[in-house]
Amino acid sequence: MTLAKDTDRPVEMLRIPYAGMVQTFTRILLKHGFDPEKADQCARVFADSSLEGVSTHGVNRFPRFVHYVRRGYVRPQAEPDVRHRAGALEQWDGKLGPGPLNALFCTDRAMVLARESGIGCVGLSNTNHWMRGGTYGWRAARAGFVFLGWTNTIANMPAWGAAECRLGNNPLVIAVPYHDEAVVLDMAMSQFSYGTVEAHALSGGVLPMPGGYDAGGHLTTDSSAILTTQRLLPAGYWKGSGLALLLDLLATLLSGGSSTGEISTREAEYGVSQVFLAVDLSRLDNSRSIATVVTGIVDDLHRSANAIEGNVRYPGERVLSARRENLDRGIPVDSRIWEEVLGLV
Amino acid sequence: MTLAKDTDRPVEMLRIPYAGMVQTFTRILLKHGFDPEKADQCARVFADSSLEGVSTHGVNRFPRFVHYVRRGYVRPQAEPDVRHRAGALEQWDGKLGPGPLNALFCTDRAMVLARESGIGCVGLSNTNHWMRGGTYGWRAARAGFVFLGWTNTIANMPAWGAAECRLGNNPLVIAVPYHDEAVVLDMAMSQFSYGTVEAHALSGGVLPMPGGYDAGGHLTTDSSAILTTQRLLPAGYWKGSGLALLLDLLATLLSGGSSTGEISTREAEYGVSQVFLAVDLSRLDNSRSIATVVTGIVDDLHRSANAIEGNVRYPGERVLSARRENLDRGIPVDSRIWEEVLGLV
Repeated sequence: MTLAKDTDRPVEMLRIPYAGMVQTFTRILLKHGFDPEKADQCARVFADSSLEGVSTHGVNRFPRFVHYVRRGYVRPQAEPDVRHRAGALEQWDGKLGPGPLNALFCTDRAMVLARESGIGCVGLSNTNHWMRGGTYGWRAARAGFVFLGWTNTIANMPAWGAAECRLGNNPLVIAVPYHDEAVVLDMAMSQFSYGTVEAHALSGGVLPMPGGYDAGGHLTTDSSAILTTQRLLPAGYWKGSGLALLLDLLATLLSGGSSTGEISTREAEYGVSQVFLAVDLSRLDNSRSIATVVTGIVDDLHRSANAIEGNVRYPGERVLSARRENLDRGIPVDSRIWEEVLGLV
Repeated sequence: MTLAKDTDRPVEMLRIPYAGMVQTFTRILLKHGFDPEKADQCARVFADSSLEGVSTHGVNRFPRFVHYVRRGYVRPQAEPDVRHRAGALEQWDGKLGPGPLNALFCTDRAMVLARESGIGCVGLSNTNHWMRGGTYGWRAARAGFVFLGWTNTIANMPAWGAAECRLGNNPLVIAVPYHDEAVVLDMAMSQFSYGTVEAHALSGGVLPMPGGYDAGGHLTTDSSAILTTQRLLPAGYWKGSGLALLLDLLATLLSGGSSTGEISTREAEYGVSQVFLAVDLSRLDNSRSIATVVTGIVDDLHRSANAIEGNVRYPGERVLSARRENLDRGIPVDSRIWEEVLGLV
């Protein structure tokens, strides 16, 4: 039990059973204009992310999601509309519907196109925060597809060499099937998220490596100093900065939607642009099975001699143990956040 | 003029005219089993990269390329063979032909598929080092396509948390058209290349930020210490490490070729796997032109207030001034490297 600086109230971790969390979220969404099917589907995206150890993009974000519905930024009953079809490439308008539902739809649509043409790509405009990007990677990879997807965001990171935030942290997801599970990379372009920096600031700790700049313009591990300047560090310095820019360019071009710069002129982060790309691996003609190839590469990684930092893991590996533990013991939730959720019922 | 530690011979920078460099490379390739068309095309890839300021993957690598031809790792007259077609997705066998020629071919092939289906993807197995990855991004983007491409490599970087090299630095290229030019990201997954670390070690300098580990397992800017441990740092720590793994998985799966682990069992780096993905932007239905969208995003980036590090640039921006200067004044080449090249004639 640690003390949160802002309130001096003890942070208690509750354990909420998965089914109960889905039920609570569903009830709240039904009260906010979602029909039963959409409420259930959306509740499961939030609950599944929490179950799999990514509460930052699950239960912790649920209250903000509901506030966005209340303010009209997220339209619960809106459904994506096709804007343009060009073979294996399609453009859809998200009509400001719920980000997770639009993203599930476009993931499935990319898979349909990939079944037809080997590869399929959907550009989605006017959508909302998709919460945990890994959701869509796990979904496609478990169905036997390679998945690449990314979203732009509001400007929240300075480009390499810049003093002000004009880049989004534009999360990128890449996934491949791995037996019945998946290898899923889900990375934002900042070295640390604001959530992580805030968490370190609250607990009084320093970051394990520089995560941004202090007021003097120097790289620092001091999380409070970074929160003051709002200057997050792009992952890999110029590399994450360049990648963030290209992902915004691609999302904006392929969807025909808004860029990070345009989203940032709004009063809140809504109407973002996303890309969903799937490859149907069953359409390939390889001498080895997918499982053989992926197992070979993962096993080779696992054979790495460990350095002092800890065990070598593949992206997504921790999800399996988190899911098992949290199904068994309940999903760990900060009691203050759960109280906030219950206040929305 | 600086002194190189290894020889104590002065490093002189020559200025070689573009046409003369192409001619010299062509002559050497003709002597090594290339037919006139292939020799010219391949010579231009090396000369263009040098012209545009990337000599590390141009003239500086040319002698090694010729040695690989001599040893039979690169087969000058081999041409890619189609292995499988599945709509907009194809698999080609590079037959161990020259990496740049195979990569140009597959870039063009991905564009043909994209013209037909909006998007096209080619997996290429049994190919060789493509030299400067940006080459293919510039080519496709100048023709009006979005380009994504990547290659795996021999293992040359430890995964995050690992002590030994089991990951490739697997360069990734993303490009979009920008008027008659392009925005081209061309990034390897290590924070610095061995070439850069070696250059710093030679000049006695330290790296501007940690680029790897010392013998004690600590992150260091000491380039000589990194050369001793051979432990390069992935860009963005766990992020570049995860991305490198996924790029290897995708390249191996989509091409049906060899993984980094498999390539690394060979006596030299040959028979790598690559992916070429193109989107035909003329097939989209956007209300704004491509130039308007890209200019809007680039201009927004350029409006960033500069921090102490210097000017904010988009990926590929420096190519334009390098090309102009080097066309005018000749391409700067280390005299010892040019001597080595001339020794191959």
